[in-house]
Amino acid sequence: MNKRADNRAVVLLSGGIDSTTILAIARKEGYETYGLSFRYGQRHIVEIAAARKIGRLMGLQRHLITTIDEHSFGGSALTGEIAVPKSRSLEEMSKGIPVTYVPARNTIFLSYALAFAEVLNTGNIFIGVNAIDYSGYPDCRPEYIAAYERMANLAIKAAVEGKIKISIMVPLINMTKAEIIKTGMALGVDYGLTHSCYDPESDGRACGSCDSCLLRKKGFQEAGIADPTKYF
Amino acid sequence: MNKRADNRAVVLLSGGIDSTTILAIARKEGYETYGLSFRYGQRHIVEIAAARKIGRLMGLQRHLITTIDEHSFGGSALTGEIAVPKSRSLEEMSKGIPVTYVPARNTIFLSYALAFAEVLNTGNIFIGVNAIDYSGYPDCRPEYIAAYERMANLAIKAAVEGKIKISIMVPLINMTKAEIIKTGMALGVDYGLTHSCYDPESDGRACGSCDSCLLRKKGFQEAGIADPTKYF
Repeated sequence: MNKRADNRAVVLLSGGIDSTTILAIARKEGYETYGLSFRYGQRHIVEIAAARKIGRLMGLQRHLITTIDEHSFGGSALTGEIAVPKSRSLEEMSKGIPVTYVPARNTIFLSYALAFAEVLNTGNIFIGVNAIDYSGYPDCRPEYIAAYERMANLAIKAAVEGKIKISIMVPLINMTKAEIIKTGMALGVDYGLTHSCYDPESDGRACGSCDSCLLRKKGFQEAGIADPTKYF
Repeated sequence: MNKRADNRAVVLLSGGIDSTTILAIARKEGYETYGLSFRYGQRHIVEIAAARKIGRLMGLQRHLITTIDEHSFGGSALTGEIAVPKSRSLEEMSKGIPVTYVPARNTIFLSYALAFAEVLNTGNIFIGVNAIDYSGYPDCRPEYIAAYERMANLAIKAAVEGKIKISIMVPLINMTKAEIIKTGMALGVDYGLTHSCYDPESDGRACGSCDSCLLRKKGFQEAGIADPTKYF
Protein backbone atom coordinates (compact mmCIF):
# COMPACT_ATOMS: atom_id res chain seq x y z
CA MET A 1 0.00 0.00 0.00
CA ASN A 2 1.31 3.37 -1.02
CA LYS A 3 1.88 5.78 1.85
CA ARG A 4 0.82 8.96 0.03
CA ALA A 5 -1.43 11.31 1.96
CA ASP A 6 -4.31 11.24 -0.51
CA ASN A 7 -4.85 7.54 -1.00
CA ARG A 8 -8.31 7.55 -2.54
CA ALA A 9 -9.20 7.82 -6.20
CA VAL A 10 -12.34 8.19 -8.29
CA VAL A 11 -12.21 5.88 -11.32
CA LEU A 12 -14.52 6.51 -14.28
CA LEU A 13 -15.61 3.00 -15.20
CA SER A 14 -17.53 2.31 -18.40
CA GLY A 15 -16.94 -1.44 -18.42
CA GLY A 16 -14.72 -1.35 -21.50
CA ILE A 17 -11.07 -2.31 -21.96
CA ASP A 18 -9.63 1.11 -21.19
CA SER A 19 -11.51 1.94 -18.00
CA THR A 20 -11.07 -1.60 -16.65
CA THR A 21 -7.34 -1.29 -17.24
CA ILE A 22 -7.12 2.03 -15.40
CA LEU A 23 -8.97 0.49 -12.47
CA ALA A 24 -6.32 -2.27 -12.38
CA ILE A 25 -3.57 0.38 -12.56
CA ALA A 26 -5.11 2.45 -9.74
CA ARG A 27 -5.45 -0.67 -7.57
CA LYS A 28 -1.84 -1.69 -8.34
CA GLU A 29 -0.68 1.80 -7.32
CA GLY A 30 -2.34 1.30 -3.96
CA TYR A 31 -5.38 3.55 -4.28
CA GLU A 32 -8.63 2.90 -2.48
CA THR A 33 -10.90 3.10 -5.52
CA TYR A 34 -14.37 4.62 -5.94
CA GLY A 35 -16.06 3.77 -9.22
CA LEU A 36 -18.33 6.10 -11.16
CA SER A 37 -20.49 4.94 -14.08
CA PHE A 38 -23.28 6.56 -16.06
CA ARG A 39 -26.51 5.57 -17.67
CA TYR A 40 -27.06 8.19 -20.38
CA GLY A 41 -29.43 6.53 -22.81
CA GLN A 42 -26.56 4.75 -24.60
CA ARG A 43 -27.46 1.96 -27.01
CA HIS A 44 -24.85 -0.18 -25.32
CA ILE A 45 -26.45 -0.11 -21.86
CA VAL A 46 -25.11 -3.65 -21.38
CA GLU A 47 -21.82 -1.95 -20.52
CA ILE A 48 -23.32 -0.91 -17.15
CA ALA A 49 -23.86 -4.56 -16.22
CA ALA A 50 -20.24 -5.23 -17.23
CA ALA A 51 -19.02 -2.25 -15.16
CA ARG A 52 -20.98 -3.42 -12.12
CA LYS A 53 -19.48 -6.91 -12.25
CA ILE A 54 -15.96 -5.59 -12.88
CA GLY A 55 -16.29 -3.18 -9.96
CA ARG A 56 -17.37 -5.96 -7.64
CA LEU A 57 -14.60 -8.35 -8.73
CA MET A 58 -11.84 -5.75 -8.79
CA GLY A 59 -12.37 -4.38 -5.30
CA LEU A 60 -14.10 -1.01 -5.61
CA GLN A 61 -14.71 0.52 -2.20
CA ARG A 62 -17.93 1.93 -3.58
CA HIS A 63 -19.56 2.15 -6.99
CA LEU A 64 -21.78 5.11 -7.83
CA ILE A 65 -23.92 4.49 -10.90
CA THR A 66 -25.74 7.64 -11.82
CA THR A 67 -28.32 8.47 -14.46
CA ILE A 68 -27.96 11.38 -16.84
CA ASP A 69 -31.15 12.54 -18.53
CA GLU A 70 -30.57 11.35 -22.09
CA HIS A 71 -32.32 14.41 -23.50
CA SER A 72 -29.31 16.38 -22.31
CA PHE A 73 -27.30 14.78 -25.09
CA GLY A 74 -28.35 14.76 -28.71
CA GLY A 75 -27.10 14.22 -32.19
CA SER A 76 -24.96 11.16 -31.51
CA ALA A 77 -25.10 7.64 -32.90
CA LEU A 78 -24.51 6.42 -29.33
CA THR A 79 -27.76 7.88 -28.01
CA GLY A 80 -29.89 9.00 -30.94
CA GLU A 81 -31.40 7.87 -34.18
CA ILE A 82 -28.22 8.03 -36.24
CA ALA A 83 -26.93 4.59 -37.31
CA VAL A 84 -23.68 3.29 -35.82
CA PRO A 85 -21.14 3.08 -38.68
CA LYS A 86 -19.90 -0.42 -39.46
CA SER A 87 -16.84 -2.06 -41.06
CA ARG A 88 -14.86 1.17 -41.49
CA SER A 89 -11.16 1.01 -42.27
CA LEU A 90 -8.70 2.56 -39.79
CA GLU A 91 -8.09 5.24 -42.39
CA GLU A 92 -11.80 6.11 -42.46
CA MET A 93 -11.90 6.16 -38.64
CA SER A 94 -8.96 8.54 -38.45
CA LYS A 95 -10.71 11.14 -40.64
CA GLY A 96 -12.43 13.72 -38.44
CA ILE A 97 -14.78 13.27 -35.53
CA PRO A 98 -17.25 10.38 -35.99
CA VAL A 99 -21.04 10.32 -35.50
CA THR A 100 -20.53 8.26 -32.34
CA TYR A 101 -19.21 11.45 -30.70
CA VAL A 102 -21.49 12.52 -27.81
CA PRO A 103 -21.57 16.29 -27.12
CA ALA A 104 -19.44 17.24 -24.10
CA ARG A 105 -19.53 13.69 -22.74
CA ASN A 106 -16.16 13.56 -21.02
CA THR A 107 -16.69 17.10 -19.70
CA ILE A 108 -19.95 16.04 -18.06
CA PHE A 109 -18.45 12.76 -16.79
CA LEU A 110 -15.40 14.52 -15.32
CA SER A 111 -17.62 17.14 -13.69
CA TYR A 112 -19.55 14.44 -11.82
CA ALA A 113 -16.22 12.83 -10.92
CA LEU A 114 -15.08 16.19 -9.56
CA ALA A 115 -18.12 16.47 -7.28
CA PHE A 116 -17.67 12.85 -6.13
CA ALA A 117 -13.95 13.46 -5.49
CA GLU A 118 -14.65 16.52 -3.38
CA VAL A 119 -17.20 14.62 -1.30
CA LEU A 120 -14.61 11.84 -0.80
CA ASN A 121 -11.95 14.44 0.01
CA THR A 122 -9.62 13.24 -2.72
CA GLY A 123 -8.09 15.01 -5.70
CA ASN A 124 -7.34 11.87 -7.73
CA ILE A 125 -9.50 11.12 -10.76
CA PHE A 126 -8.63 8.32 -13.20
CA ILE A 127 -10.07 8.40 -16.72
CA GLY A 128 -9.20 5.95 -19.49
CA VAL A 129 -8.88 8.41 -22.36
CA ASN A 130 -6.53 7.61 -25.15
CA ALA A 131 -5.15 9.86 -27.87
CA ILE A 132 -3.75 7.10 -30.11
CA ASP A 133 -6.63 4.79 -31.02
CA TYR A 134 -9.04 7.50 -30.01
CA SER A 135 -11.37 7.61 -33.00
CA GLY A 136 -11.07 11.39 -33.24
CA TYR A 137 -12.79 12.54 -30.04
CA PRO A 138 -11.61 16.04 -29.00
CA ASP A 139 -12.18 15.34 -25.30
CA CYS A 140 -9.55 12.58 -25.28
CA ARG A 141 -6.60 14.84 -26.13
CA PRO A 142 -3.84 15.80 -23.65
CA GLU A 143 -4.47 19.54 -24.10
CA TYR A 144 -8.12 19.07 -23.18
CA ILE A 145 -7.23 17.07 -20.06
CA ALA A 146 -4.67 19.71 -18.98
CA ALA A 147 -7.23 22.51 -19.41
CA TYR A 148 -9.84 20.51 -17.48
CA GLU A 149 -7.45 19.94 -14.58
CA ARG A 150 -6.56 23.62 -14.42
CA MET A 151 -10.25 24.61 -14.38
CA ALA A 152 -11.08 21.97 -11.75
CA ASN A 153 -8.50 23.33 -9.33
CA LEU A 154 -10.24 26.72 -9.50
CA ALA A 155 -13.74 25.24 -9.25
CA ILE A 156 -14.07 23.45 -5.96
CA LYS A 157 -13.87 24.51 -2.35
CA ALA A 158 -11.40 21.82 -1.18
CA ALA A 159 -8.92 22.69 -3.95
CA VAL A 160 -9.23 26.46 -3.50
CA GLU A 161 -8.67 26.00 0.24
CA GLY A 162 -5.56 23.88 -0.50
CA LYS A 163 -6.92 20.70 1.10
CA ILE A 164 -6.69 18.63 -2.09
CA LYS A 165 -5.17 19.06 -5.52
CA ILE A 166 -7.10 17.74 -8.49
CA SER A 167 -5.03 15.41 -10.68
CA ILE A 168 -6.71 13.97 -13.74
CA MET A 169 -4.80 10.71 -14.18
CA VAL A 170 -4.63 9.45 -17.77
CA PRO A 171 -2.18 6.52 -17.70
CA LEU A 172 -3.35 5.22 -21.10
CA ILE A 173 -3.21 8.48 -23.02
CA ASN A 174 -0.19 7.55 -25.13
CA MET A 175 -0.72 3.78 -25.38
CA THR A 176 -1.97 1.80 -28.35
CA LYS A 177 -4.85 -0.58 -27.71
CA ALA A 178 -2.36 -3.48 -27.85
CA GLU A 179 -0.18 -1.84 -25.17
CA ILE A 180 -3.25 -1.23 -23.02
CA ILE A 181 -4.25 -4.90 -23.28
CA LYS A 182 -0.72 -6.10 -22.47
CA THR A 183 -0.60 -3.75 -19.45
CA GLY A 184 -3.91 -5.05 -18.17
CA MET A 185 -3.02 -8.70 -18.76
CA ALA A 186 0.18 -8.21 -16.72
CA LEU A 187 -2.05 -6.88 -13.91
CA GLY A 188 -4.37 -9.88 -14.14
CA VAL A 189 -7.34 -8.20 -15.84
CA ASP A 190 -9.96 -10.59 -17.20
CA TYR A 191 -10.98 -8.88 -20.44
CA GLY A 192 -13.73 -11.43 -20.90
CA LEU A 193 -15.67 -9.28 -18.42
CA THR A 194 -15.37 -6.11 -20.47
CA HIS A 195 -17.71 -4.73 -23.11
CA SER A 196 -16.72 -2.49 -26.02
CA CYS A 197 -19.39 -2.75 -28.72
CA TYR A 198 -21.41 0.38 -29.57
CA ASP A 199 -24.26 -1.61 -31.06
CA PRO A 200 -24.63 -4.98 -29.27
CA GLU A 201 -27.31 -7.62 -29.78
CA SER A 202 -30.01 -7.80 -27.11
CA ASP A 203 -28.20 -10.82 -25.58
CA GLY A 204 -25.11 -8.64 -25.12
CA ARG A 205 -23.01 -10.15 -27.92
CA ALA A 206 -20.79 -7.66 -29.76
CA CYS A 207 -21.56 -6.71 -33.38
CA GLY A 208 -17.94 -7.16 -34.42
CA SER A 209 -17.99 -4.36 -37.00
CA CYS A 210 -18.47 -0.98 -35.27
CA ASP A 211 -15.37 1.19 -34.72
CA SER A 212 -15.12 0.07 -31.11
CA CYS A 213 -15.27 -3.67 -31.98
CA LEU A 214 -12.75 -3.20 -34.79
CA LEU A 215 -10.29 -1.36 -32.54
CA ARG A 216 -10.75 -4.04 -29.89
CA LYS A 217 -10.08 -6.88 -32.35
CA LYS A 218 -7.03 -5.08 -33.72
CA GLY A 219 -5.75 -4.53 -30.17
CA PHE A 220 -5.93 -8.20 -29.23
CA GLN A 221 -4.41 -9.20 -32.56
CA GLU A 222 -1.46 -6.84 -32.19
CA ALA A 223 -0.98 -7.83 -28.56
CA GLY A 224 -0.82 -11.47 -29.68
CA ILE A 225 -3.52 -12.38 -27.17
CA ALA A 226 -6.70 -14.35 -27.84
CA ASP A 227 -9.78 -12.09 -27.89
CA PRO A 228 -12.25 -13.44 -25.30
CA THR A 229 -15.16 -11.44 -26.79
CA LYS A 230 -18.35 -13.19 -27.88
CA TYR A 231 -19.14 -11.73 -31.30
CA PHE A 232 -22.46 -12.01 -33.08
CA MET B 1 -32.53 42.05 -33.61
CA ASN B 2 -28.77 41.79 -33.61
CA LYS B 3 -27.24 40.65 -36.91
CA ARG B 4 -24.44 38.56 -35.40
CA ALA B 5 -23.87 35.17 -37.02
CA ASP B 6 -24.43 33.14 -33.87
CA ASN B 7 -27.72 34.50 -32.61
CA ARG B 8 -28.71 31.75 -30.20
CA ALA B 9 -27.80 31.49 -26.53
CA VAL B 10 -28.19 28.96 -23.74
CA VAL B 11 -29.27 30.68 -20.51
CA LEU B 12 -28.83 28.89 -17.17
CA LEU B 13 -32.06 29.75 -15.39
CA SER B 14 -32.54 28.96 -11.70
CA GLY B 15 -35.53 31.21 -11.19
CA GLY B 16 -33.67 33.62 -8.91
CA ILE B 17 -32.87 37.31 -9.33
CA ASP B 18 -29.52 36.82 -11.08
CA SER B 19 -30.49 34.26 -13.71
CA THR B 20 -33.77 36.08 -14.47
CA THR B 21 -31.80 39.27 -15.01
CA ILE B 22 -29.36 37.58 -17.41
CA LEU B 23 -32.28 36.20 -19.38
CA ALA B 24 -33.60 39.76 -19.72
CA ILE B 25 -30.13 40.95 -20.79
CA ALA B 26 -29.78 38.15 -23.37
CA ARG B 27 -33.23 38.96 -24.80
CA LYS B 28 -32.39 42.69 -24.90
CA GLU B 29 -29.19 41.89 -26.80
CA GLY B 30 -31.28 40.10 -29.43
CA TYR B 31 -30.48 36.47 -28.67
CA GLU B 32 -32.91 33.65 -29.35
CA THR B 33 -32.79 32.12 -25.86
CA TYR B 34 -32.78 28.46 -24.76
CA GLY B 35 -33.29 27.96 -21.03
CA LEU B 36 -31.64 25.24 -18.98
CA SER B 37 -32.72 24.42 -15.41
CA PHE B 38 -31.89 21.59 -13.04
CA ARG B 39 -33.61 19.52 -10.43
CA TYR B 40 -30.81 18.28 -8.18
CA GLY B 41 -32.51 17.43 -4.92
CA GLN B 42 -32.37 21.03 -3.74
CA ARG B 43 -34.45 21.97 -0.70
CA HIS B 44 -35.72 24.95 -2.62
CA ILE B 45 -37.30 22.95 -5.48
CA VAL B 46 -39.97 25.67 -5.69
CA GLU B 47 -37.38 27.60 -7.73
CA ILE B 48 -38.06 25.23 -10.67
CA ALA B 49 -41.70 26.32 -10.75
CA ALA B 50 -40.51 29.93 -10.71
CA ALA B 51 -38.02 29.23 -13.53
CA ARG B 52 -40.71 27.57 -15.63
CA LYS B 53 -43.07 30.53 -15.31
CA ILE B 54 -40.30 33.06 -15.94
CA GLY B 55 -39.18 31.13 -19.03
CA ARG B 56 -42.72 31.13 -20.41
CA LEU B 57 -43.32 34.83 -19.75
CA MET B 58 -39.92 36.01 -20.94
CA GLY B 59 -39.96 34.30 -24.33
CA LEU B 60 -37.65 31.29 -24.16
CA GLN B 61 -37.55 29.46 -27.46
CA ARG B 62 -37.25 26.23 -25.52
CA HIS B 63 -36.77 25.32 -21.87
CA LEU B 64 -34.87 22.14 -20.97
CA ILE B 65 -35.42 21.11 -17.35
CA THR B 66 -33.17 18.21 -16.53
CA THR B 67 -32.77 16.04 -13.46
CA ILE B 68 -29.42 15.39 -11.83
CA ASP B 69 -29.26 12.38 -9.53
CA GLU B 70 -29.05 14.07 -6.13
CA HIS B 71 -26.71 11.37 -4.83
CA SER B 72 -24.11 12.85 -7.15
CA PHE B 73 -23.87 15.81 -4.82
CA GLY B 74 -23.28 15.53 -1.10
CA GLY B 75 -22.23 17.44 1.93
CA SER B 76 -24.19 20.61 1.22
CA ALA B 77 -26.89 22.37 3.21
CA LEU B 78 -28.74 22.85 -0.10
CA THR B 79 -29.19 19.13 -0.69
CA GLY B 80 -28.24 17.25 2.45
CA GLU B 81 -28.93 17.02 6.14
CA ILE B 82 -26.89 20.05 7.18
CA ALA B 83 -29.04 22.97 8.41
CA VAL B 84 -29.22 26.12 6.31
CA PRO B 85 -27.55 28.90 8.34
CA LYS B 86 -29.83 31.76 9.36
CA SER B 87 -29.55 35.45 10.29
CA ARG B 88 -25.83 35.73 9.57
CA SER B 89 -24.22 39.16 9.30
CA LEU B 90 -22.58 40.13 6.00
CA GLU B 91 -19.27 39.85 7.82
CA GLU B 92 -20.00 36.25 8.76
CA MET B 93 -21.10 35.50 5.19
CA SER B 94 -17.86 36.88 3.77
CA LYS B 95 -15.71 34.52 5.86
CA GLY B 96 -14.86 31.47 3.78
CA ILE B 97 -17.05 29.14 1.78
CA PRO B 98 -20.43 28.42 3.41
CA VAL B 99 -22.17 25.08 4.02
CA THR B 100 -24.66 25.96 1.28
CA TYR B 101 -21.83 25.33 -1.20
CA VAL B 102 -22.68 22.36 -3.49
CA PRO B 103 -19.63 20.41 -4.80
CA ALA B 104 -18.78 21.30 -8.41
CA ARG B 105 -22.29 22.64 -9.03
CA ASN B 106 -21.51 25.33 -11.59
CA THR B 107 -19.02 22.98 -13.31
CA ILE B 108 -21.75 20.38 -13.75
CA PHE B 109 -24.33 22.98 -14.79
CA LEU B 110 -21.97 24.55 -17.35
CA SER B 111 -21.08 21.11 -18.73
CA TYR B 112 -24.74 20.38 -19.47
CA ALA B 113 -25.01 23.86 -20.99
CA LEU B 114 -22.02 23.04 -23.18
CA ALA B 115 -23.68 19.87 -24.51
CA PHE B 116 -26.95 21.77 -25.09
CA ALA B 117 -25.07 24.59 -26.85
CA GLU B 118 -23.31 22.19 -29.19
CA VAL B 119 -26.60 20.50 -30.09
CA LEU B 120 -28.08 23.97 -30.81
CA ASN B 121 -24.96 24.92 -32.78
CA THR B 122 -24.27 27.98 -30.65
CA GLY B 123 -21.27 28.99 -28.57
CA ASN B 124 -23.10 31.46 -26.32
CA ILE B 125 -23.78 30.47 -22.72
CA PHE B 126 -25.16 32.95 -20.17
CA ILE B 127 -24.68 32.28 -16.46
CA GLY B 128 -25.65 34.65 -13.66
CA VAL B 129 -22.57 34.27 -11.49
CA ASN B 130 -21.51 37.17 -9.36
CA ALA B 131 -18.21 37.74 -7.58
CA ILE B 132 -19.38 40.63 -5.37
CA ASP B 133 -22.31 39.41 -3.28
CA TYR B 134 -21.25 35.88 -4.04
CA SER B 135 -21.23 34.34 -0.57
CA GLY B 136 -17.77 32.85 -1.12
CA TYR B 137 -18.42 30.27 -3.86
CA PRO B 138 -15.21 29.47 -5.78
CA ASP B 139 -17.09 28.67 -8.99
CA CYS B 140 -18.41 32.23 -9.27
CA ARG B 141 -15.00 33.90 -9.69
CA PRO B 142 -13.74 35.40 -12.98
CA GLU B 143 -10.61 33.17 -13.01
CA TYR B 144 -12.79 30.08 -12.79
CA ILE B 145 -15.04 31.24 -15.63
CA ALA B 146 -12.02 32.05 -17.84
CA ALA B 147 -10.53 28.58 -17.19
CA TYR B 148 -13.87 26.94 -17.93
CA GLU B 149 -14.21 28.78 -21.24
CA ARG B 150 -10.69 27.79 -22.28
CA MET B 151 -11.37 24.13 -21.45
CA ALA B 152 -14.74 24.18 -23.23
CA ASN B 153 -13.19 25.37 -26.48
CA LEU B 154 -10.92 22.29 -26.42
CA ALA B 155 -13.72 19.92 -25.42
CA ILE B 156 -16.33 19.90 -28.13
CA LYS B 157 -16.36 18.95 -31.77
CA ALA B 158 -18.01 22.12 -33.08
CA ALA B 159 -15.44 24.35 -31.31
CA VAL B 160 -12.43 22.24 -32.32
CA GLU B 161 -13.67 22.30 -35.92
CA GLY B 162 -14.00 26.11 -35.73
CA LYS B 163 -17.78 26.15 -36.32
CA ILE B 164 -18.58 27.87 -33.02
CA LYS B 165 -16.59 29.59 -30.28
CA ILE B 166 -17.69 29.04 -26.71
CA SER B 167 -18.24 32.31 -24.81
CA ILE B 168 -19.30 32.06 -21.20
CA MET B 169 -21.21 35.31 -20.73
CA VAL B 170 -21.23 36.68 -17.19
CA PRO B 171 -22.78 40.16 -17.42
CA LEU B 172 -23.42 40.33 -13.65
CA ILE B 173 -20.00 39.25 -12.46
CA ASN B 174 -18.95 42.66 -11.13
CA MET B 175 -22.35 44.01 -10.10
CA THR B 176 -23.73 44.38 -6.60
CA LYS B 177 -27.16 42.89 -5.96
CA ALA B 178 -28.61 46.43 -6.02
CA GLU B 179 -27.06 47.09 -9.44
CA ILE B 180 -28.41 43.78 -10.73
CA ILE B 181 -31.92 44.67 -9.55
CA LYS B 182 -31.74 48.16 -11.08
CA THR B 183 -30.52 46.65 -14.38
CA GLY B 184 -33.37 44.14 -14.42
CA MET B 185 -36.01 46.75 -13.48
CA ALA B 186 -34.84 48.92 -16.38
CA LEU B 187 -35.42 45.90 -18.66
CA GLY B 188 -38.91 45.32 -17.25
CA VAL B 189 -38.18 42.25 -15.10
CA ASP B 190 -40.94 41.34 -12.65
CA TYR B 191 -38.94 40.23 -9.62
CA GLY B 192 -42.14 39.10 -7.95
CA LEU B 193 -41.80 35.98 -10.14
CA THR B 194 -38.34 35.13 -8.84
CA HIS B 195 -37.36 32.89 -5.95
CA SER B 196 -34.18 33.21 -3.86
CA CYS B 197 -34.74 31.47 -0.51
CA TYR B 198 -32.62 28.41 0.30
CA ASP B 199 -35.09 27.11 2.85
CA PRO B 200 -38.64 28.05 1.87
CA GLU B 201 -41.91 27.06 3.57
CA SER B 202 -43.93 24.35 1.85
CA ASP B 203 -46.23 27.06 0.43
CA GLY B 204 -43.20 28.66 -1.26
CA ARG B 205 -42.86 31.66 1.08
CA ALA B 206 -39.26 32.72 1.72
CA CYS B 207 -37.73 32.23 5.18
CA GLY B 208 -36.32 35.77 5.24
CA SER B 209 -33.20 34.85 7.17
CA CYS B 210 -30.95 32.55 5.08
CA ASP B 211 -27.96 34.14 3.31
CA SER B 212 -29.85 34.26 0.03
CA CYS B 213 -32.90 36.01 1.56
CA LEU B 214 -30.65 38.46 3.42
CA LEU B 215 -28.68 39.37 0.27
CA ARG B 216 -31.95 39.74 -1.62
CA LYS B 217 -33.44 42.08 1.02
CA LYS B 218 -30.26 44.13 1.14
CA GLY B 219 -30.25 44.36 -2.67
CA PHE B 220 -33.78 45.77 -2.86
CA GLN B 221 -33.06 48.13 0.04
CA GLU B 222 -29.90 49.50 -1.56
CA ALA B 223 -31.61 49.78 -4.95
CA GLY B 224 -34.37 51.81 -3.28
CA ILE B 225 -37.00 49.48 -4.73
CA ALA B 226 -39.81 47.74 -2.83
CA ASP B 227 -39.10 44.02 -2.34
CA PRO B 228 -42.02 42.05 -3.86
CA THR B 229 -41.07 38.86 -1.96
CA LYS B 230 -43.58 37.11 0.27
CA TYR B 231 -41.65 36.33 3.46
CA PHE B 232 -42.76 33.88 6.11
